[in-house]
Amino acid sequence: MGIVQEMIFLFLFAAFVVNLVSAQRSTYIVHMDKSFMPKVFASHQHWYSSILDSLKSTSPNFHQNPSMLLYSYENVLHGFSASLSKSELEAVKKSLGFVSAYSDKVATLDTTHSTEFLSLNPVTGIWPASEYGKDVIVGVIDTGVWPESLSYRDDGMTEIPSRWKGACDGGYDFNSSLCNKKLIGAKYFNKGVLAANPNNTKKMYSARDTEGHGTHTSSTVGGNYVEGASFFGYALGTARGVAPRARLAMYKVIFEEGRYASDVLAGMDQAIADGVDVISISMGFDLVPLYEDPIAIASFGAMEKGVTVSSSAGNAGTDLGELHNGIPWVLTVAAGSMDRWFAGSLTLGNGLTITGWSVFPARAVVRESPLIYNKTISACNSTKLLSEVSSGTVICDSSESFNNQLYYVSRSTLDAAIFISSDYTYDDSLFPYPGVVISPGEGAEVINYAVNGVNPTASMEFQRTLLGTKPAPIVAEYTSRGPSPSYPEILKPDIMAPGTLVLAAWRPNDAVSIIGPNIGLSNDFNLASGTSMACPHAAGIAALLKGAHPEWTPAAIRSAMVTTANPLDNTGTPIRDAGFSYATATPVSMGAGQVNPNSALDPGLIYDATPQDYVSILCSMNYTQKQIQTITRSSYNCSKTSSDLNYPSFIALYPNKTKNALAKKFKRIVTNVGDGAATYKVQVTAPKGSGVTVYPDTLVFGQKYDKQSYSLKIKYKANQNKTVTFGSVIWVEVNGKHIVRSPIVVAPIIPVW
Amino acid sequence: MGIVQEMIFLFLFAAFVVNLVSAQRSTYIVHMDKSFMPKVFASHQHWYSSILDSLKSTSPNFHQNPSMLLYSYENVLHGFSASLSKSELEAVKKSLGFVSAYSDKVATLDTTHSTEFLSLNPVTGIWPASEYGKDVIVGVIDTGVWPESLSYRDDGMTEIPSRWKGACDGGYDFNSSLCNKKLIGAKYFNKGVLAANPNNTKKMYSARDTEGHGTHTSSTVGGNYVEGASFFGYALGTARGVAPRARLAMYKVIFEEGRYASDVLAGMDQAIADGVDVISISMGFDLVPLYEDPIAIASFGAMEKGVTVSSSAGNAGTDLGELHNGIPWVLTVAAGSMDRWFAGSLTLGNGLTITGWSVFPARAVVRESPLIYNKTISACNSTKLLSEVSSGTVICDSSESFNNQLYYVSRSTLDAAIFISSDYTYDDSLFPYPGVVISPGEGAEVINYAVNGVNPTASMEFQRTLLGTKPAPIVAEYTSRGPSPSYPEILKPDIMAPGTLVLAAWRPNDAVSIIGPNIGLSNDFNLASGTSMACPHAAGIAALLKGAHPEWTPAAIRSAMVTTANPLDNTGTPIRDAGFSYATATPVSMGAGQVNPNSALDPGLIYDATPQDYVSILCSMNYTQKQIQTITRSSYNCSKTSSDLNYPSFIALYPNKTKNALAKKFKRIVTNVGDGAATYKVQVTAPKGSGVTVYPDTLVFGQKYDKQSYSLKIKYKANQNKTVTFGSVIWVEVNGKHIVRSPIVVAPIIPVW
Repeated sequence: MGIVQEMIFLFLFAAFVVNLVSAQRSTYIVHMDKSFMPKVFASHQHWYSSILDSLKSTSPNFHQNPSMLLYSYENVLHGFSASLSKSELEAVKKSLGFVSAYSDKVATLDTTHSTEFLSLNPVTGIWPASEYGKDVIVGVIDTGVWPESLSYRDDGMTEIPSRWKGACDGGYDFNSSLCNKKLIGAKYFNKGVLAANPNNTKKMYSARDTEGHGTHTSSTVGGNYVEGASFFGYALGTARGVAPRARLAMYKVIFEEGRYASDVLAGMDQAIADGVDVISISMGFDLVPLYEDPIAIASFGAMEKGVTVSSSAGNAGTDLGELHNGIPWVLTVAAGSMDRWFAGSLTLGNGLTITGWSVFPARAVVRESPLIYNKTISACNSTKLLSEVSSGTVICDSSESFNNQLYYVSRSTLDAAIFISSDYTYDDSLFPYPGVVISPGEGAEVINYAVNGVNPTASMEFQRTLLGTKPAPIVAEYTSRGPSPSYPEILKPDIMAPGTLVLAAWRPNDAVSIIGPNIGLSNDFNLASGTSMACPHAAGIAALLKGAHPEWTPAAIRSAMVTTANPLDNTGTPIRDAGFSYATATPVSMGAGQVNPNSALDPGLIYDATPQDYVSILCSMNYTQKQIQTITRSSYNCSKTSSDLNYPSFIALYPNKTKNALAKKFKRIVTNVGDGAATYKVQVTAPKGSGVTVYPDTLVFGQKYDKQSYSLKIKYKANQNKTVTFGSVIWVEVNGKHIVRSPIVVAPIIPVW
Repeated sequence: MGIVQEMIFLFLFAAFVVNLVSAQRSTYIVHMDKSFMPKVFASHQHWYSSILDSLKSTSPNFHQNPSMLLYSYENVLHGFSASLSKSELEAVKKSLGFVSAYSDKVATLDTTHSTEFLSLNPVTGIWPASEYGKDVIVGVIDTGVWPESLSYRDDGMTEIPSRWKGACDGGYDFNSSLCNKKLIGAKYFNKGVLAANPNNTKKMYSARDTEGHGTHTSSTVGGNYVEGASFFGYALGTARGVAPRARLAMYKVIFEEGRYASDVLAGMDQAIADGVDVISISMGFDLVPLYEDPIAIASFGAMEKGVTVSSSAGNAGTDLGELHNGIPWVLTVAAGSMDRWFAGSLTLGNGLTITGWSVFPARAVVRESPLIYNKTISACNSTKLLSEVSSGTVICDSSESFNNQLYYVSRSTLDAAIFISSDYTYDDSLFPYPGVVISPGEGAEVINYAVNGVNPTASMEFQRTLLGTKPAPIVAEYTSRGPSPSYPEILKPDIMAPGTLVLAAWRPNDAVSIIGPNIGLSNDFNLASGTSMACPHAAGIAALLKGAHPEWTPAAIRSAMVTTANPLDNTGTPIRDAGFSYATATPVSMGAGQVNPNSALDPGLIYDATPQDYVSILCSMNYTQKQIQTITRSSYNCSKTSSDLNYPSFIALYPNKTKNALAKKFKRIVTNVGDGAATYKVQVTAPKGSGVTVYPDTLVFGQKYDKQSYSLKIKYKANQNKTVTFGSVIWVEVNGKHIVRSPIVVAPIIPVW
């Protein structure tokens, strides 16, 4: 995991500590039933204020915190957030129209050749078809924005669409004039974090990015073209967002001091009110049921208004069922690598040249440095031992982890180091000392020369960028795996997008790399890794699809991305998973596969879904009426309870210990979004050890927008090894070009929240 | 002194050692009288070969070294160089026509906002007047060239002048196709170095620059425009040579293994034969009389052919009389600073911001680092003590030298350091750890805050470049001081040019900066300091003057540069000398002052000199006939013996101990190069304690090219403190714009070679 991830974990921990310290009064998010509002109130806000005012009599210390009402919410939920003591909360719960209340939560954050890697190009496909996302507005819910970044220049941007209702709010170190025709909005939502951190600072009153994450994600979605962007010479080229003509609006809800559900809800509420078309949210709330997950709650309102929400699956790694944002009505994005490698060239005194992994962040030059292989120090796990060598280039064998070796070497007085490792994917941009990582086979050659050569030497040069490397993509080790603990009956994640070592804008006053033990280096661009970086790629593609197909629902946009995703890598074989020793990746790691934007433009068939469809699956869950209303806000109809959403993928779960034969049946309705009549025939590949039947095997559509239905049945068994097996159902257009593929997964049951 | 200087000293030392080891046979340079050549020989080379052939009988080991003849010389001297034993040398001395012989010598090397600082501009003055040096050919005698440098691209260059007789010689790692319309010639002269180093390497057979120095000097003379050049972010801008349209020809005579007079002579000989207009030679031979100084010898031939030779004064520092290249017929160039400062900004937690000197070579960022002032470690002279601090920013007081402190800090794990120093000029581009140098006054404020502030912190940013800094220029501490030990009766140096922290091209595979104890960084451009960097500035200006005034002699070109040089800095007060605590600089440090190319274009009056004039001063010296002929080659006429060259400056020397009143009388002839009739009146400022009379006080010229003479008499005294005093004689045009200034210097006698 990259530096960003590590920083995020640190800063979450800090927020957590602060939260405990100020625990006497806590922030609660209160859901209300709008239909109970007495007619005397002009607005919901008045109603909510009156409820809180009524607490004054019961709370002796009330006046110590007069701004108890933090936000009233309108679009993502009906209700408000407020700073309340336990007894005040109990009083609120007795109010007429009260639905639910839960304490404010802390979210976890997740993290450009990527456009080329995704085959985006100006000649054909979705870029020209969507006019590069022109006039699509993407709201980014994140840490704020560094508006001076070149990625937010508005060269080539047309006038802002008149439907835009948002604004650029000035704040500390953030003049509202910094917005333009590219960055069309910037707001900050700090009341939750302020309530939890009474010692507020001026910096908290601003949409300025004090971290870098929001600048990275938003410029990945829709940054303008920036020539000569690089990470200290690596990845040099023209940076641009996935939708380089889309508009960006930043909603800062994450602060150095923490991130709170109340602020996230307020930011998403505002984004929807402002008129965004797509929301990109690279964070998630862990260990919460849907009715306490602010992103699930807020994105339900977004979905109702036709706003696609792209979210990150999380960076929890390889354990099954640790994914977040596995919400039926959002797009959940996993992260993979790109076909790009950063390298240094190692040339030995005997002429042998090896290209090894390196991201050493400067134009270091190592010239005919004495090459040292010495069993006493080759573990490279002691700065003291390494310093006894004094200078020269040391060979570090694989007896110690590469990251630990880097630590010790970076504190030495060596010229450079050669690390031997069997890894071949890297997701960390920290490389604080001159060196390269080479394979064990190459290492054997280098050691042989070091031991047997006469006055052996090594020379190195850095800042090499290799493109077209294979295999790619590879599922990232860090990406969180499904099934979704909030709703495992739907396959999550949905798709994979580039998330590893993504180059995008960053705040320029942050250390994004290190040399030696302690020299931090800043840069206008950063190579960051995480599902946080994959999410805005998918959001950008959603924006392009929205630009090309303004009539498509969020479900249609997601369906197009899922059914056209590519399960193969650039060697033509199934995508591998770095988290499982490069074995074939399963859909619980990467969903349907690598997102394929040009194919998603014209998917042939669509699996659509309405708000009521999502209500029906909520009704199938073991939720109370109030819990469901917390998500849906209005009253709802549970007459059509169904756990079988019209989703473009299939998952069947098996319990731990049964040996019985199991079966699960699905019904699907597909809509023809091709240009006219079409006939599709099915191709089924059953998961290993399972049987799959599809009926009918042919679907005939008379014209565009015709719908047809089919059923799919999986017969499967439990597996003691908790194996995930998978196959696919593919609808192939007869005499046509469309191929509509859905993964079929059999996976063990996981604990559900 | 810069890294380059240190490297040069190391490499000279290595060459010296090698030279001792292979001492059995040595290289000698043998001057012959051409008129003695027997008519049976078709060429001089045949003659010289026959002389060496005749040695075979006397030398039993002759066949061990068949290529004994290294070079025969034609233009710079009549004679040859050969590898000879002592007895062979004695035999050669008995040959008919033998003039002199001396053993091959080792030279010492001396080391772009500068064009702006020199007021070169495309609107007025010498750039447009000379068409930027178009069609002027500059030969650079140096370490070779890195032809792939962007500075040698030939964009915008016209066809090569047909008079060019040179060539681009291929060699090891140097394809002759690398030359173009900018770099029109490249040759290497390695026979002297090979003779001294029998273990030759392939690299020695090439004009490729294996050092960087020749690439720097030649691109300073006439490099093409290169946008975005910088030294790790410092000095960012468009690099270009002083004469950006001049042609460059490289004569490589300096090798990693050493530099030898025989090769230098061969290179200059070839340059003159090839048809160069100007020679730039940034090296010198120390401790030799004129008749054993290969640059004096070779440049006499150049002068005769109208080729201006610009040379560096040397980097010997402040002791009087240690200058080299103080040759009457060359231009001798001292080095000064520019109005540019490289800096980091230091911001304290209390808001105070200070801009301090820094060239830390990366975009380091120090953010709210704990600020530490601790008497135990504030000398910053122990890595062990500093490492006990572990991290934070330490204040290093001025109890230890800044360079030593940098050494210890760069081996620590600190975040950064603040150095307190009273210097305010810097000539070293090495700055291996994040930090800034601030003044004692600023230091007191920072210490006060560190001691009394609550949780004091420091933040820093780097890569700042300040322009227009004052005062500038300042004479560099390192620049060698006159009077000239080879001919003290003429004021040397002649002028000063920018030499400190000059940005120009460098070989890209060399470490030009360092981070931490041992991480070397390379770059396409380097900031180098030395008179080596000043010399090509003057050579470039000579090329511009040659382009604008093709008819001017080398003496006229030098006179124009001397009489228009500026003795004041950019504060309007006399230029200061960093070598003497910033006291007013004297002409033995900087000659007439800072070269002023636009004024030199139109100097009003010229002090010209013919080859015979130089012979006359040689005749006045205590030289033998053979010694004089060694320089002049042909026989000469000593009937007009005179020690009073028609030079554009005046120097009177006093012996150590006399208390007598002294007097020296000079006669000068000035040529009107203004556009028509003109009248000049004299203004005299006598050196302190001296009297100066000039007769007549008015010079009337009827038309262009009229000549007038005047006499100048200095009455002066010896001074026990060996003080240098100075004044000036200025001829001011009546009702005109020309001001023709010559410095008058009274200085102590120095030892003469």
